[in-house]
Amino acid sequence: MAERRARTATLLMHCPDRPGVVAAVTRFLATHGANIVDLDQHVDRAEGVFFMRVRWELEGFALDAEAFEAAFRSGIADHFDAVWQLHHQDRPLRLALFVSKMSHCLYDLLSRWQSGEWRVEIPLIISNHETLRPVAQQFGIPFHCFAISPENKAEQEAAEIELLERHGIDLVVLARYMQIVGPALINAFPQRIINIHHSFLPAFAGARPYHAAHARGVKIIGATSHYVTEDLDAGPIIDQDVTRITHRDSIKALVRKGQDLEKLVLARGVWAHLQRQTLVYRNRTIVFS
Amino acid sequence: MAERRARTATLLMHCPDRPGVVAAVTRFLATHGANIVDLDQHVDRAEGVFFMRVRWELEGFALDAEAFEAAFRSGIADHFDAVWQLHHQDRPLRLALFVSKMSHCLYDLLSRWQSGEWRVEIPLIISNHETLRPVAQQFGIPFHCFAISPENKAEQEAAEIELLERHGIDLVVLARYMQIVGPALINAFPQRIINIHHSFLPAFAGARPYHAAHARGVKIIGATSHYVTEDLDAGPIIDQDVTRITHRDSIKALVRKGQDLEKLVLARGVWAHLQRQTLVYRNRTIVFS
Amino acid sequence: MAERRARTATLLMHCPDRPGVVAAVTRFLATHGANIVDLDQHVDRAEGVFFMRVRWELEGFALDAEAFEAAFRSGIADHFDAVWQLHHQDRPLRLALFVSKMSHCLYDLLSRWQSGEWRVEIPLIISNHETLRPVAQQFGIPFHCFAISPENKAEQEAAEIELLERHGIDLVVLARYMQIVGPALINAFPQRIINIHHSFLPAFAGARPYHAAHARGVKIIGATSHYVTEDLDAGPIIDQDVTRITHRDSIKALVRKGQDLEKLVLARGVWAHLQRQTLVYRNRTIVFS
Amino acid sequence: MAERRARTATLLMHCPDRPGVVAAVTRFLATHGANIVDLDQHVDRAEGVFFMRVRWELEGFALDAEAFEAAFRSGIADHFDAVWQLHHQDRPLRLALFVSKMSHCLYDLLSRWQSGEWRVEIPLIISNHETLRPVAQQFGIPFHCFAISPENKAEQEAAEIELLERHGIDLVVLARYMQIVGPALINAFPQRIINIHHSFLPAFAGARPYHAAHARGVKIIGATSHYVTEDLDAGPIIDQDVTRITHRDSIKALVRKGQDLEKLVLARGVWAHLQRQTLVYRNRTIVFS
Repeated sequence: MAERRARTATLLMHCPDRPGVVAAVTRFLATHGANIVDLDQHVDRAEGVFFMRVRWELEGFALDAEAFEAAFRSGIADHFDAVWQLHHQDRPLRLALFVSKMSHCLYDLLSRWQSGEWRVEIPLIISNHETLRPVAQQFGIPFHCFAISPENKAEQEAAEIELLERHGIDLVVLARYMQIVGPALINAFPQRIINIHHSFLPAFAGARPYHAAHARGVKIIGATSHYVTEDLDAGPIIDQDVTRITHRDSIKALVRKGQDLEKLVLARGVWAHLQRQTLVYRNRTIVFS
Repeated sequence: MAERRARTATLLMHCPDRPGVVAAVTRFLATHGANIVDLDQHVDRAEGVFFMRVRWELEGFALDAEAFEAAFRSGIADHFDAVWQLHHQDRPLRLALFVSKMSHCLYDLLSRWQSGEWRVEIPLIISNHETLRPVAQQFGIPFHCFAISPENKAEQEAAEIELLERHGIDLVVLARYMQIVGPALINAFPQRIINIHHSFLPAFAGARPYHAAHARGVKIIGATSHYVTEDLDAGPIIDQDVTRITHRDSIKALVRKGQDLEKLVLARGVWAHLQRQTLVYRNRTIVFS
Repeated sequence: MAERRARTATLLMHCPDRPGVVAAVTRFLATHGANIVDLDQHVDRAEGVFFMRVRWELEGFALDAEAFEAAFRSGIADHFDAVWQLHHQDRPLRLALFVSKMSHCLYDLLSRWQSGEWRVEIPLIISNHETLRPVAQQFGIPFHCFAISPENKAEQEAAEIELLERHGIDLVVLARYMQIVGPALINAFPQRIINIHHSFLPAFAGARPYHAAHARGVKIIGATSHYVTEDLDAGPIIDQDVTRITHRDSIKALVRKGQDLEKLVLARGVWAHLQRQTLVYRNRTIVFS
Repeated sequence: MAERRARTATLLMHCPDRPGVVAAVTRFLATHGANIVDLDQHVDRAEGVFFMRVRWELEGFALDAEAFEAAFRSGIADHFDAVWQLHHQDRPLRLALFVSKMSHCLYDLLSRWQSGEWRVEIPLIISNHETLRPVAQQFGIPFHCFAISPENKAEQEAAEIELLERHGIDLVVLARYMQIVGPALINAFPQRIINIHHSFLPAFAGARPYHAAHARGVKIIGATSHYVTEDLDAGPIIDQDVTRITHRDSIKALVRKGQDLEKLVLARGVWAHLQRQTLVYRNRTIVFS
């Protein structure tokens, strides 16, 4: 496995579709010494929108982030009316995990971190219950409990936002956090909050999806990871997966089988974000390969 | 492949759960000389209902259908308050296919019949359009066109029912028939009309599910075969399956990928019915293995 | 979720196929007051063998394990020439985990135990390396390191067997244990050692399956959980699953995606064993539903 | 579905990885007026090879095929030492289907053609048996029977090659053709013969894979479409898929379930080729998205 782990930069962009965008961007990069290691481009012809992700090695590249911004803006972005983000993969992203009482996603995420599978930092875990404090302690991560009631919700979320910002959190992961997140928190982390919903959305949005799936008699259940927006369970989907069930499966069995899906689909959604493979356009997520 | 194709009988039953049902039924069968080749039983403990499918060889079995009915009723069914059906697999079932303009499911079903993969008879194809008459002709099957308008719908369906009954149809298969079937036809073939819906129900019920799936930005699409009831797209589900899509897939690509699913899921649903593996209870289908 | 967690007994058996086996067994159980909650039966007609799993509530059942043995042997087993096992689900099974350097399966199994998802006991973890001792410590489980060399292998495994027996281990789980297990250990735990192999067996048996899969250019990779026999990677398969890959996936990416499969397939294999759903016949595993 | 069906050209290429390839190619295309509608690029860093597929609209593009060849060779290919193919999607590809006695893949391919799902021509069907002549006749396609014996094989294949060339065949599809294809035919259609093998290769290569799968007790069966090379069942894989089975499935059931897979996997493999999404490098197939 002689793969180099070179430092790279990733550009995500979209703009109205016009001839010559790929040529212009790749020439811009080549001019400044970039060796492209990945380029994935897509034109949505129905919408007339061009999407691109391009990743290149920083070694030998002439522009630092600031210089890139100036040069790219004037050389490319203004001309093509592009919306873009540049990400330098030179430091681990910082994740905050939100949990309630169920531990399966929490264990899964923490073990990916602790084993080194994911190169991230997890400075804190936030919960609305004390239940999972021992798990946080076992993994040596500070645990903050903010009990939420209708009366104190805005206030508690303000405290959470302050805490998240103080710790320089890049991404919030709702790992079966059983509370609706309020608009202030959502707006503080736009397209930077990922939730796992325990159904195959848009089927069975809202509460108790396994009960609803059982009542409907479906033959397959699913899980969905998505960015959180103010519309409950309606944000841009990142990943989904399913598993087959039968009439033999009680609600309890659905829950058990579903939890394995939830772990997997949440982890894959977070991974795609960490790799900077995701780009939200309207209410859809482009997941570059 | 030295499997015998012995003639068998299949009993499907459900009753309130009580100790001793399996023992009573299997003893009844053994007493009359049955060699059981399959027995699948399930207790839904939440509902308190017992379900069973049992299949035995007719060779050596002492009771014909009529004698069975009398003996089983007094010996077992009355005692356990059971609802039951007996099926003798001694003749091919007779299928009517309903189609509109799309041919992919029709070709798939006809080729399973013509190749001998399915031991069924298909005495007629019914459509609300002339489009697929050439396909019916090519396979040598009578094609009946009943154009449907709001004004003539009840009358046309009455004619269809008459035709279906005259041909001794056992099962109606809606192979992408783009018309809502009326109550008279549904009631004439209770739990004997199977539809394919081109989504993963209950997501995207109703018209244009691929458009809706594209708009929602799902990462997986599906298809569902179900028994038809008066609630549109809400009948008991027999089978479902899914396939992964990406942002690169246009609506046209969803349709193309979805059609392969539809063929498969409809065929599996019909096959389960042909094998007498299905038992509807309330709005769910038990699919015995 | 008002499911009772009643204490139950499970009988697994197989015998030459003859008419009347189900009737005899279920009448035997009914006679002694059993309320059957699950019965799954299968006849392999090519082999002429009858397989059955039946589970009943212990409440109200007249026979304890010893009385059952005597009565079942003389009443049923001798008559039908049956091979059978009776399992009382009245105590948690005791698992020993064998690991080497990779932690993903270990974390997954330990979190299922610690969260209470699985009602088992894990009295010890055995490894041929020190690497994962901190994980064991974090979960509070004794960790025993037995370094293995060609010279000391028989001796070390003898010590392991002694340790396993002293702790009353019911099931050994090889959670990416990168050592071939010797015959003495296999024979001490017949059909009670479950391994996870990181390929879709029988493809890519042996070492470095992800490298082999990459070299062959497959489009799907898999994982297999199986009972360990003296034939390497050739024991009876319990569960398998797969995931789609593309040409973009480096060997490193295959390893990363494969690890998620390994966790899932090992857990499902162990779960099936814990539920007493598995019955090995020749080199195949019947997995009852 | 307002998608235009514009005429497009597709370029497939690979070359040693160097900085600036994408930039050079896209600038070349832009210079000549191309509007790129798809670009998928991949660097295999372990091998040090760059792969690209780019598709652009022919409307407004200044170069015809001949002019492209000259300009691309001198401007790009020679410089980067590239291997490349240009495909103009301006005429339907011409397919020859090879079959033996089983009809399921044949029906599936013919119905995709006849329904207009695939824009291809199928001028002839070749078989080593008379069995499927009626199916060919029903679809109005000339059927040529070449009985093959060890003695006449070379001679018969020479006649087949002559026939294929006379009909301007672009792609040969082995739709469950139960004969090993000889080297002369393979060399006449390099990377233009697609076979469906009824197993999850490399497991169960060779004859009777369903029997072998049953004997091994696998829990999942598969099918594989691949380009044919002189190594039996070892050519570059295009697509694979799998389906879950249980101990209840006899060999006959495996065959039945497997045939649905074979239809699907062969059709997807051929579709990828028709879309010019495939590029063979050594013994692997790059399948661009």
